[in-house]
Amino acid sequence: MNNIKIPLDESDIPRQWYNLAADLPTPPLPPLGPDGKPIGPEMLAPVFPMNLIEQEVSTKRWIDIPEEILDILYRWRPTPLRRAVYLEKYLDTPARIYFKDESVSPPGSHKPNTAVAQAWYNKQFGIKKITTETGAGQWGSALAFACKLLELECKVFMVRISFDQKPFRKMMMQVWGANCVASPSPETNAGRKVLEEMPDTPGSLGIAISEAIEQAVTDKSGKTRYSLGSVLNHVLLHQTIIGLEAKKQMAQIGEKSPDIVIGCAGGGSNFAGLSFPFVADKINGADIKIVPVEPTACPTMTRGPFAYDFGDTACTTPLLAMFTLGHAFIPPPIHAGGLRYHGMAPLICQAIVEGLMEPRAYHQLESYEAALIWARTEGFIPAPETSQALAAVIDEAKKAKEEGKEKMILFNYSGHGLMDLTGYDAYLSGKLTDFELPETELKKYTKALESYPKAEVRKSGKW
Amino acid sequence: MNNIKIPLDESDIPRQWYNLAADLPTPPLPPLGPDGKPIGPEMLAPVFPMNLIEQEVSTKRWIDIPEEILDILYRWRPTPLRRAVYLEKYLDTPARIYFKDESVSPPGSHKPNTAVAQAWYNKQFGIKKITTETGAGQWGSALAFACKLLELECKVFMVRISFDQKPFRKMMMQVWGANCVASPSPETNAGRKVLEEMPDTPGSLGIAISEAIEQAVTDKSGKTRYSLGSVLNHVLLHQTIIGLEAKKQMAQIGEKSPDIVIGCAGGGSNFAGLSFPFVADKINGADIKIVPVEPTACPTMTRGPFAYDFGDTACTTPLLAMFTLGHAFIPPPIHAGGLRYHGMAPLICQAIVEGLMEPRAYHQLESYEAALIWARTEGFIPAPETSQALAAVIDEAKKAKEEGKEKMILFNYSGHGLMDLTGYDAYLSGKLTDFELPETELKKYTKALESYPKAEVRKSGKW
Repeated sequence: MNNIKIPLDESDIPRQWYNLAADLPTPPLPPLGPDGKPIGPEMLAPVFPMNLIEQEVSTKRWIDIPEEILDILYRWRPTPLRRAVYLEKYLDTPARIYFKDESVSPPGSHKPNTAVAQAWYNKQFGIKKITTETGAGQWGSALAFACKLLELECKVFMVRISFDQKPFRKMMMQVWGANCVASPSPETNAGRKVLEEMPDTPGSLGIAISEAIEQAVTDKSGKTRYSLGSVLNHVLLHQTIIGLEAKKQMAQIGEKSPDIVIGCAGGGSNFAGLSFPFVADKINGADIKIVPVEPTACPTMTRGPFAYDFGDTACTTPLLAMFTLGHAFIPPPIHAGGLRYHGMAPLICQAIVEGLMEPRAYHQLESYEAALIWARTEGFIPAPETSQALAAVIDEAKKAKEEGKEKMILFNYSGHGLMDLTGYDAYLSGKLTDFELPETELKKYTKALESYPKAEVRKSGKW
Repeated sequence: MNNIKIPLDESDIPRQWYNLAADLPTPPLPPLGPDGKPIGPEMLAPVFPMNLIEQEVSTKRWIDIPEEILDILYRWRPTPLRRAVYLEKYLDTPARIYFKDESVSPPGSHKPNTAVAQAWYNKQFGIKKITTETGAGQWGSALAFACKLLELECKVFMVRISFDQKPFRKMMMQVWGANCVASPSPETNAGRKVLEEMPDTPGSLGIAISEAIEQAVTDKSGKTRYSLGSVLNHVLLHQTIIGLEAKKQMAQIGEKSPDIVIGCAGGGSNFAGLSFPFVADKINGADIKIVPVEPTACPTMTRGPFAYDFGDTACTTPLLAMFTLGHAFIPPPIHAGGLRYHGMAPLICQAIVEGLMEPRAYHQLESYEAALIWARTEGFIPAPETSQALAAVIDEAKKAKEEGKEKMILFNYSGHGLMDLTGYDAYLSGKLTDFELPETELKKYTKALESYPKAEVRKSGKW
């Protein structure tokens, strides 16, 4: 049973991030401003520091990782690549299943890979304070962690219902010294307005984003910026260290290319982090199936139209060309809170348009069934988001058995489920249900998109 | 900043446990039965399987670890040895601080090292079901995990107040398929009796132990046994894989012997697991300071007399020779629940009597202060028990600075604090207090010990 954990020496950590924008055969459509024209970098300057904006618009293939960022990542990186031998045995499959274990970071997920990088670039730019929003708290806790290690102030607007019902992520943020308040809060115009109209509102991610952006752009010192944990190009870029490490680890044990690469996708950052270096191989001719997995409750990639839409509910962002369920869509309360997003990272969407990826959706109950199989064979308890990927992994392993093929499956174990045990409790006591978005609902929310500029489907036709 | 994580190849995992009983210059006093005479192995047979009883009484120095146990441990073992470079830098100390990271196991602590071994030996002996008690749930979840992987039934009696107030560990047990009930329960005579007299009781570890033992010994099929997570010789034995791995890892990077070895001690298992292989070196002449750390709220080793006492509140166990605060002592509600035990492992107590160890106590607030320093430098959030050890580590590192000495400190990072965030919340909001056991209280609880056989202090006088 040897070699189920494949470490990577610290000295072999990747020293550059990989930028898929350099290699996509057809470039993604540009973000549009309120005038319907492509926005320039300067329009983002009040929100993000210029060094991150440069990464956001860069088409350079490789971007150096500053040594000081690596110095923080060494606390948990390189993460182990592991082989799921116990699951393989349970499924009696000829498939070899490998996973990149991103759950080993202090906040328990892949999120700090970009939180640390963003905090560092903000600090370099002279920023003293970063604001953000968080739903269940994965992203907020990762940014709190990063800001503490870099001695930046961190302000997190946490959706009120999570703030009240799930206090543990909030406590994590406080351990790392962040100021976490329930949103809507009385601290911003956006928050006060909502509180006046609906004093008992549970809050929403849309409101929290508005508050975080408002607090960043109205700080008169000019030393505050806003930070986002997924969707944007520079966020995905920082996550590619995952896939680049995995490649080195596979080479170390003599494994060639995976046949199938799988990850769950909400805004897309953990999936992109693992898969983009393999998308590059696919563009160069490798035969790889690349599968982003989403919940049927929020079927952005599998049922949403490719269209220009806002990234947030409050319509404060530029228009992004992506698969979307409409920015007003509020996903049902599934436990995989990190996958409850109406849109998807534009880079991923363009790769789907090109035919480089094959998105797939799973029901909530299927994902919990997969999670229990995992916890009872491999031993570790996965996050509900990660469990969506697991459902696809198990399906592919079963298919390999049926076909008698020795497929190699690689997936991203994006986080542990220790802060999400209530979902397991609900599943085990039979209280969980599946959600399927009715067609009429979908049409209701995507109708608004017709009034925006049309997103042209452009592809090379090679896949 | 290279080499802060020192892995150990799976093929280098230790294949034998180390038994300190073989090397203690003066053997520990024997456990006594109700008649005041040393008990024989057969008296334990209704409670434990005979193969574990053999380990309990063994004086063999090395005991082989069965390959099938290793096959389960490989999921997370060997655990990394890590160097706390960020804490060193923060403290500006010449000390080199290493820690064995036992928090990486699926249940998040060192506990599964013995849970897996005990479950395996029970299964070998033909046992189908294991019962146990748990307080906050660390041990119960580790045993649930082990039993699921070995396909044994697992029944956990969880102290009612924890069952109600801290539901997450209970949910972990259920994810791993265990049956976890609040104690006192209506399932046992012991439980029913308490419920009749005190229907609203919060329960206690003493009651839960009585229930678990009763259910084991009264099962007419003879296929049920009881399991304990600390204190006993065979439990400490299974934990020595921690220290044995650490030795190999130190050798791998050219570090010789540590100057100081530190661990927190409740029943003593994580401390013993790391330290016993180094106690052996000390017996053979090495100059090592070995420090078990306990809370001032439960100062067993630093203030309790060395005496014969029962291991449980209900007086069902044999009398054990140990430092004890009296079995009726109920420690104050400190957050380090795993350290709230009135006694201490007899093997550790004899090593203290010999002068091989130097126990030390820290206040709760000191330990949380140390925990925050750790979380904000190293990044990971420690368990409240582990934080007690951290307080001592930081003290020793400061002392090394004062003395200008390049000491090497090694400690056991016994578990993460992700399930214990309420303690941090209480600390950060100023709601935590220190506890110091008043002398009159101590005398009240230890007075009963005068009626038991006297525990003779025997030592070689070499230390």
